[in-house]
Parts: sequence; structure tokens; C-alpha cells
Amino acid sequence: MSAQLTDVTARDAGDPLREFRDLFQLRDGLIYLDGNSLGAAPRAAADCVAEAVTNQWGEGLITSWLGAEWSTAPQRIGDKIASILGAKPGEIVAADSTSVNIFKALTAALSLRPDRSVILSEATNFPTDVYMMQGIETFSGGRLKAVTVDPDAVLDRLGDDVAVLLLTQVHYKSGLVRDMAKVTRRAHAKGVLVIWDLSHSAGALPVDLNSSNADFAIGCGYKFLNGGPGAPAFIFVAERHQAAAPVLSGWFGHASPFAFEEDYRPAGGITRFLCGTPQVLGLAALECGVDLMSRVDMAELRRKSLALGDLFIERMELRCGTFGFELVSPRDPALRGSQVSYTHPNAYEIVQALKERDVIGDFRAPDILRFGLTPLYLRYADIAEAIEQLREICLTRAWDKPEYRTRAAVT
Amino acid sequence: MSAQLTDVTARDAGDPLREFRDLFQLRDGLIYLDGNSLGAAPRAAADCVAEAVTNQWGEGLITSWLGAEWSTAPQRIGDKIASILGAKPGEIVAADSTSVNIFKALTAALSLRPDRSVILSEATNFPTDVYMMQGIETFSGGRLKAVTVDPDAVLDRLGDDVAVLLLTQVHYKSGLVRDMAKVTRRAHAKGVLVIWDLSHSAGALPVDLNSSNADFAIGCGYKFLNGGPGAPAFIFVAERHQAAAPVLSGWFGHASPFAFEEDYRPAGGITRFLCGTPQVLGLAALECGVDLMSRVDMAELRRKSLALGDLFIERMELRCGTFGFELVSPRDPALRGSQVSYTHPNAYEIVQALKERDVIGDFRAPDILRFGLTPLYLRYADIAEAIEQLREICLTRAWDKPEYRTRAAVT
Repeated sequence: MSAQLTDVTARDAGDPLREFRDLFQLRDGLIYLDGNSLGAAPRAAADCVAEAVTNQWGEGLITSWLGAEWSTAPQRIGDKIASILGAKPGEIVAADSTSVNIFKALTAALSLRPDRSVILSEATNFPTDVYMMQGIETFSGGRLKAVTVDPDAVLDRLGDDVAVLLLTQVHYKSGLVRDMAKVTRRAHAKGVLVIWDLSHSAGALPVDLNSSNADFAIGCGYKFLNGGPGAPAFIFVAERHQAAAPVLSGWFGHASPFAFEEDYRPAGGITRFLCGTPQVLGLAALECGVDLMSRVDMAELRRKSLALGDLFIERMELRCGTFGFELVSPRDPALRGSQVSYTHPNAYEIVQALKERDVIGDFRAPDILRFGLTPLYLRYADIAEAIEQLREICLTRAWDKPEYRTRAAVT
Repeated sequence: MSAQLTDVTARDAGDPLREFRDLFQLRDGLIYLDGNSLGAAPRAAADCVAEAVTNQWGEGLITSWLGAEWSTAPQRIGDKIASILGAKPGEIVAADSTSVNIFKALTAALSLRPDRSVILSEATNFPTDVYMMQGIETFSGGRLKAVTVDPDAVLDRLGDDVAVLLLTQVHYKSGLVRDMAKVTRRAHAKGVLVIWDLSHSAGALPVDLNSSNADFAIGCGYKFLNGGPGAPAFIFVAERHQAAAPVLSGWFGHASPFAFEEDYRPAGGITRFLCGTPQVLGLAALECGVDLMSRVDMAELRRKSLALGDLFIERMELRCGTFGFELVSPRDPALRGSQVSYTHPNAYEIVQALKERDVIGDFRAPDILRFGLTPLYLRYADIAEAIEQLREICLTRAWDKPEYRTRAAVT
């Protein structure tokens, strides 16, 4: 055993989170560096979902809306997510997709700033965030404007015409972390509301929504919360904003959905930010992921996440330093989310070659290799081994195969 | 065995659809008359969903977006639903909730009628349909108007100011069937687009969207399609309207979602009516229900559905004629969906008493007992037996118990 390998093995043995790995379904040999795209399956998920299908649906049928507490699952799971994100019970629900929740948050914020017309974001934000802004602009017939500016120019663009700022806390490509409290403070000073996209934050690092005085937040259930493919997303609305009128005013957000009243009368609290019938099976899987995350010491998780990132960067320099990779994630751990990203002219092909060696990373156009670092199931030894594989691929130019050149959609 | 029982047993023995019942998970003794609220579980659903959780998610992880064809599931399942509803491949996707799809259809229709301001419906439409209209009115700042009129006055209200008419084909309370072709023709004559809510039609009776010249339709996956609790819903957009600009312009409706372009560029065809990441687990269950329905002769299904309804009405008159029930569903089978509904002053308590005897019906405020008739798993003998139970409950006033009086939410 090399000295390097001895070192990482010892670190794994001393890892206070090491027992979590066994709670996930991960086959031997696989090094999964894509938990920021789709988190691995908690072993408990199969039983939770089977219980929902066979016992609750199959046997309980319609009575499970009350009997199995389906009807309150969005709020119950929302409260659990709230405890991970520094929010209060009654400030988060789990429902719909991230995109749909972005729409809900944007339109709620706009209703609170009726005299302002600009929806602001950064130009490199995750596309669906900006696309949802553009849909609102179109629908408004030009009254509202979706404006994106250079990431560094966001704070300077805040002004009297800006109703709401939509930012992702951890950038999906670079992993750069925005200072939530500071940005929120700067926005509030100009009367601007802020929506935080926590897709790459929730379950990845400590988040404290209320300490940051956050207005709205939305995020994804299927990344670091390990809620399953296409899991329900979540929406946070600070208690002080919960009187906002929902535009997606569906029956599950009604004060009394089963009274079948003719007019929409919004439920009190966060419930009005529900819309249609809850996705019961998706919620069952999501709850497993969230329950697992609820047991994690987030400070410990952050420590390991950054240690994995530091190790990754250090080993890349040592073992792959001459192959043309450029680090695009911040070297400063305080500014880095739970991922490391590099550019390389052959990024796409290298991701394919890694996959063939059971190392799963992500390609992000045009030239980024993105490696998600999920502290609950990754070992220090996995990082070391992934980089040895990468070194071998580069040394032998194993990525240079015709079959790797055909680009297909990679999520 | 009474002559009556002999009769229904013989009808069951000769039922051409009798073999479908075994494909559903339904425990012995249960008479489930609530498939129009939540359809029963196809036996195949447990395996389909387990495959999605354990093999596709657990083992395949991120590669299943392509490897298990998750990314095209909304279109694939949409095409299967299209074949049931008289639509073409590429005119339906399965996604989001019914409420969210109503919003998509309404805003798309409005974009095609920019000079008109009224969204029209009937006052007794299913609440979420009207609530979604009202949310759009609110967001428009009064430019658009959500208008509801008496059900009989809908056609007379059509006019130059009406952009879109939203109607449910089969009424959720009464089961009254609207003539889709006739209403659509009348609306088109006034330049009005029509959105059909097929929540109580899809899988319940033959629907022919294109023969009716339908513009838009939406519907529910968890009723007669047996797609599971909170299943993804569907949206139909006639090919001629697919250039409409989506307001919910999420990344899965983008022409090239994984190019991560900065501006929204809608996909061609029906795909632009997707929004966020597909709900994979919910889609897996829905596909089981839809696959099962795809094997059914819809004319045969309709015949049995109406025969079950006729039997229900006939036996109610014969055995429960003196207990104060009033039929609110049309007696004429041509006008009746796959349900029968009655009013009764003690409707709520009677539904509870029936449930205690393993006969599951539905209460709908203020005084309606609603019985869904799902031809795939109901037997003629079940109808006869349900009415014998109802008779006994009424004869002994078994519904008159304090514990039945506390109304809880019943979906």
C-alpha cells in the first residue's frame, strides 16, 4: 500500500460520517461523483415506496389520504426540510418541480412589489431559473422585464426598479457560494426581495434562511437531499410574506379544499403555496432522503465536504497537473460548495472515459468536468482512486476514442 | 341464491371485461366505488415502481435518464394516453398536476387570443379549474377576467370578448357528459378556444379529441387511468396550437435543455409544454395504469360502465326507493359518465356507514353521495351487494351514530 493510500484509508477510518455510506445503495467499485445531479438511493427508499404503493395505495386506497397522512405530507416533509435549512415549521412545503416553485416565488414576490418591473438574475444562473423569469416577462406583455447581468454586477444593478432578485446560492457549474446574508442585506437596502435557489445547497452545506433574513427560497429534492429522480421540490416563504396572493391558486392551496367552494380563498400560512394534488409516491421517496439528512450534523458534513474538495484539488495538482485541467471552483473552501469543477478541451470525452471505469462525473457545456462531493457516501479513498483513473486516462489518452465523441444529452 | 343474485352472477360470468379485475390489487370483500377519486392499484405497479427505485435509480443512478429512458417518459406515456383519447402521437405529455396543466393550457390559449379578456367556465365546475382561472385574473391586474356562469348559460355567454372556455367533459358531482364536438363547434363559431378537463373522462369512456376538433385538454392520471395517488397529469395541445408560447417555460420544455443556453428557446411540438424535471417514480406507476388501459376495448368499457350505472339506478329504486335518495346523475345513459350520484340529507353519515361495511363511496358537499363505476374491476354483483348494504343501513338507521357526524376532509 502506497503512503498516499495509507493516508486516505486512515482518514476514512476516522471519518465521523463513515457509517452513513451503508445507508445508501451503491454497488462495489462504483465511484459516484454525481450526487449533485441525482443523489444516490437511500436503502430505505425501496421499502418506503413499496409501502406507499402496496399498502397505502393498494390496500388503503382512498382512505390513505387521511389514514396514511398523504394529505399533509407536503407540510410534514416541508417542516423536516425547514429544520435542515434554518427555517421554522410552517415556512416550507415539498411540492411540484423546482421550476414551478420558482414561478410561485417570483409571482408572489412581484405581488409584494407591484410598482417595480424588473426581475433580476445573473447571466450564468442555472437556465431554468432564467427561463421561468422570461416566461413571466412574456406573459406580462412587456410590463415586467427579466434582466440578467454579469455575476459580478448583480449588486450594482439593485435599484428602485427591481422587484426581485433570483440567485442560486451555490453555482451549478463552478460551485461558488454566494453570501446569503450579505446579498440579502444589500438587496433589502434597495427594497428588493430575494429568492434563493438552494438546489446545490440543501443537504450540501449549512443553510440558515432566517438568520440570513431570506424572503423566499426554492430547491431541488433529488440532489443532495437524495429524494429520488424527479423528486418533489420545495419552496420556502418567510412567515412575513405568507399573505402574498398565489398565482398558481390550485385546490390544495385553498383554505378548505374539500368544501368545493366556488371561489379561491387561500389557506393560511405556507399551505397556500401548494397547488395541485400532492405527488404521493415521489413524496414517499423524498421523505426517506430527508429523514436520513435530518440525522446528520451539518457542521460535520460541511467539514468533510470541504476536506474531500481540498483533497481532490490537491491530488489533481499532484497527479494530473500537466494534462490541461483548469480549476474553475474556488480554491478557498469558504467560497466553495460541495463540488469541484475543471475545464478541459476534451471534457466531454474524458467524462465518458471515466464512466467506462465506473467513475461517474458530469459534463457541463461547453467544457466543464463537474464532480459532486456527497459526504454521506463518498470516501477519501474514492477521491484518490478517481484521480488515479483520471491520470491513467490522460496518460494513455484513453479518452480519444471515436465513440466518446458523439455527444448525447447528459443530465 | 335469490333470483336477483343469480341474475347478476350470470352477468358477471358473461362479462367480456371480467378478466381485468385480477390485474388489480383489491382485497376480498371490498366494494370499491371510488375509482373516480383514486383508481385501484394495478398489480403490476408494485414491480414497475420497485424497478424504478431499486434498479433504475439505485443501480443505474444518473445514467438512467438515458439508459432507462426517463427523459422521454412524459412524451412516451403521453403518446399512449393519446391513443386512448383520439389524439395523435406528439399531442400529449404526462407531467405536473392537473392544476398546473390547466394553467399551461389557459395561458397558451390566452396567448392565441391576445385581444380578448374573458376566461369562461361554468359556476359548478371542479373548483381547481375555476381557482386557476382566478389566479390568472389576479396576476393580470384585472386585464383578464375569470367569469363563471350557470351551466346552462355557457353557450349563450360565448362572444367576442371570450378568449377561452374551460369545461369539464364529465361533471365531477353529477356525472353529466357534455357534448365535446358540439360545444367546441359552438365556441369556434365565436372564435373561442376550448380547454376540456378530461379528469372524469380519460379511461372512463371513449374520447375522440381530434374528431371533436378540440384545442386543448388536460386531465388526471389517478382516477380512471389508475396511475397512483397524485400521479402526473396530462396535457393535450392540438398540433395546430403547438406554436403557442409557454408561460411556464422551464428547462424540460427547452429546445436543448442540456446545452444550458441563457435564453429560453421552446422545443418544437408538445415538448414545450413540459416545465421542470419529470417525476420519474410517479410516471412509472402511471405508465402501468395507462398500459393496462391501452389493452381495453373502449366501446366495451363504455357498454359495461353504462350497464353498471343502469343496474345501480334500477336497484336503488327497487330496494332504496323510500329512503329519500334523489338521483342527480342523468338517467339517460348517453348523458352519463362512469358514476351515479344521489343527494340525501344524511349523505355524509351514510358514506361513513357504508365504509364501515367495506363499501367505499364518496361524499361531496353539501349532500351528495357519489359512486364511481370502474368497469375494469367492478362486478354486477358488487353493485347489487352495495345496494343491499345501503338498504340495511337505511332500514336500521345505522348511519345515525355520533361518530359519523364529525366531518373530516374526505378526498
